[in-house]
Amino acid sequence: MDRVTGSVGLAGCEWLQYDYNPTLIAQDRPGSFTMWRYRELLPVDDGPVRYPVPIGGTPLLPAPALRQTMGMPHLWIKDETRNPTASNKDRATALVLEDGLRRRVDTITTASTGNAAVATAFGAAAAGIRAVIFVSTDCQPDKLTLMTQAGAWVFLVRAGYAAAVDLSRAAARTFGWLDRNTGANPFTIEAKKTVAFEIWEQLERRPPDVMIAPVGDGPTLVALDKGFAELVSCGLATRRPRLIGVQAEHCQPLVRAWLGTPAGPAELDPAATVADGIAVVRPAIGNAVLDAVRRGGGAMVAVSDNALLGAVATLAGRAGVGAEPAGAAALAGLEVAVEHGLADRAETVALLVTGREVKTNRATSRPDRTAIVETLDQVERALEQ
Amino acid sequence: MDRVTGSVGLAGCEWLQYDYNPTLIAQDRPGSFTMWRYRELLPVDDGPVRYPVPIGGTPLLPAPALRQTMGMPHLWIKDETRNPTASNKDRATALVLEDGLRRRVDTITTASTGNAAVATAFGAAAAGIRAVIFVSTDCQPDKLTLMTQAGAWVFLVRAGYAAAVDLSRAAARTFGWLDRNTGANPFTIEAKKTVAFEIWEQLERRPPDVMIAPVGDGPTLVALDKGFAELVSCGLATRRPRLIGVQAEHCQPLVRAWLGTPAGPAELDPAATVADGIAVVRPAIGNAVLDAVRRGGGAMVAVSDNALLGAVATLAGRAGVGAEPAGAAALAGLEVAVEHGLADRAETVALLVTGREVKTNRATSRPDRTAIVETLDQVERALEQ
Repeated sequence: MDRVTGSVGLAGCEWLQYDYNPTLIAQDRPGSFTMWRYRELLPVDDGPVRYPVPIGGTPLLPAPALRQTMGMPHLWIKDETRNPTASNKDRATALVLEDGLRRRVDTITTASTGNAAVATAFGAAAAGIRAVIFVSTDCQPDKLTLMTQAGAWVFLVRAGYAAAVDLSRAAARTFGWLDRNTGANPFTIEAKKTVAFEIWEQLERRPPDVMIAPVGDGPTLVALDKGFAELVSCGLATRRPRLIGVQAEHCQPLVRAWLGTPAGPAELDPAATVADGIAVVRPAIGNAVLDAVRRGGGAMVAVSDNALLGAVATLAGRAGVGAEPAGAAALAGLEVAVEHGLADRAETVALLVTGREVKTNRATSRPDRTAIVETLDQVERALEQ
Repeated sequence: MDRVTGSVGLAGCEWLQYDYNPTLIAQDRPGSFTMWRYRELLPVDDGPVRYPVPIGGTPLLPAPALRQTMGMPHLWIKDETRNPTASNKDRATALVLEDGLRRRVDTITTASTGNAAVATAFGAAAAGIRAVIFVSTDCQPDKLTLMTQAGAWVFLVRAGYAAAVDLSRAAARTFGWLDRNTGANPFTIEAKKTVAFEIWEQLERRPPDVMIAPVGDGPTLVALDKGFAELVSCGLATRRPRLIGVQAEHCQPLVRAWLGTPAGPAELDPAATVADGIAVVRPAIGNAVLDAVRRGGGAMVAVSDNALLGAVATLAGRAGVGAEPAGAAALAGLEVAVEHGLADRAETVALLVTGREVKTNRATSRPDRTAIVETLDQVERALEQ
């Protein structure tokens, strides 16, 4: 990959480096508004894009009614629900698969409890690549339906999510599969950083003052930081926004770490919150999140479930944007941030709405594509059938 | 509206006319790829677009794996699930609301059982306009949640869907509200015809040989016909595609009318099919559908529920596209069409995937925004509270 000039290991992440300069995002460039628009800052060589579904290029909405409600004339919503499986996970999936198509890898794997697994199953189907997903046995049946409907193999692991991650990563190493696990593959952050580039272009090549995003494992926020930082490195921006990360009160390990106070059990209870998409007790790249927030002069805030459900309703009723509770966390976080003086109503503030759950028909489930496993041998045997 | 030169009443529809010429869709025009790209062929005057959410510009997917499965190298999927509420109804909603914003009308109304109501509720919220929706009392609770979550007023009518339509239309007349009822407002067809323009542009300014779409009330297919016909009228295309309309076997009034054989009760049973989105016993503009199909040398076909569920799974597994059963009907119809010699595997065939159901959290429902009504007086009193 000629574009990537090196990589640095830091805070548990691998950071790809480029030869930063202003020509990497040329002004008035032609080409459609998708994430491939930023090819010069992505780890893919020249040549036609193989991945057959347009990804990214999501709208930055002015949301006039919401602006009025909030008394914030420069508020923006970056609506990632407009991606193919209605979440920003589609970006990471697409870049990992594009790499796989170029290298002729025939299988992609991930462990996930939710949107990342659905994005992987549908994305792999679009690319004609096999998806092998590892979940905990307590995974929701509707999500299993979505994954198997798209033809993915889904292996259920009794020992829980952490064991599912271990099996998925071991399978990737052993069988040479694409590893799309959060925090494991630097391509996931490379893909998600394009959100920052898009917002900057949509604001007429200026970063917002404040950028607010939900935080579960961390890649979404860390990628925003890398994207905005690269614009500065390229000489295309003179400053980066303050990043505000939002977690649910019931599961707020990084808010507690940010504040330097230990989290009680009620603050580390993922099953207790409606925001399942960000309810992660041990975030995969938590240290990188704290670094990113610190660097930009931002903060971490926690929000109640009531505030999350209120944010879902406010996004729907004042902006016409449908979101799941985790996807709406940025709006709930904005209210806390304004209250605590972390953001001013006169500032340019962008909220990242990360996703929305999609509905499906259980009659399209394929139970023959699921199996309970404990070992890689069992995985291999199941796939041979 | 200077652009519209007149209108013709035909087959139960009002057809707006323009001064057709090739400059109406200029080549290499700038501007983003949304439905407003076709302003010169829409009933809105010059000046900035007020509606704050980008609509349309959905991808035409090559779906390589699906092409292989079907043995059809020139198969395309027009993916309308990429609209804000995941269906093509967003186009009609947006144009009706754009008109309302320009005329300073403060309320939009429609009767609907599904996606059109959700699109209206969310679209109105985005525009800062009040939505008043009329449904039958047997409307699904999840759909009611979505509508009220977005701040719409929802009036439930015990006498059923037809009575809900009557009340909605009477309210529009009496109170001067925007009337978004299917088949009532010519703007809904004007908006949906932009799908044809987009496909033509995406195929490098050529129409497909065959275009397949689900048919419920009819506007989606009729609008495709008007769009492709207008390209011919403009001198931008020399032919129109054959249109194939698809209905569910359990509710196929227009297939029976097309074949000239009376429908039995089992063929007019909307509750019996999984394709609720197109299960309409008395299509609002059925005659216009039959005209459109006849004009292009197309056909109407019926598909089984098994075929519809199979099409959902095939779209997911071979194209990475999530659809509800009604939204996947075009793929099920393609299989019938190929079998009956209505389409050839070597032809350029475009499938319209119209929509996908979205999921929501019932905790965000607002029961205070619903009431059971029988008369306009009751509607007026409820809204005054």
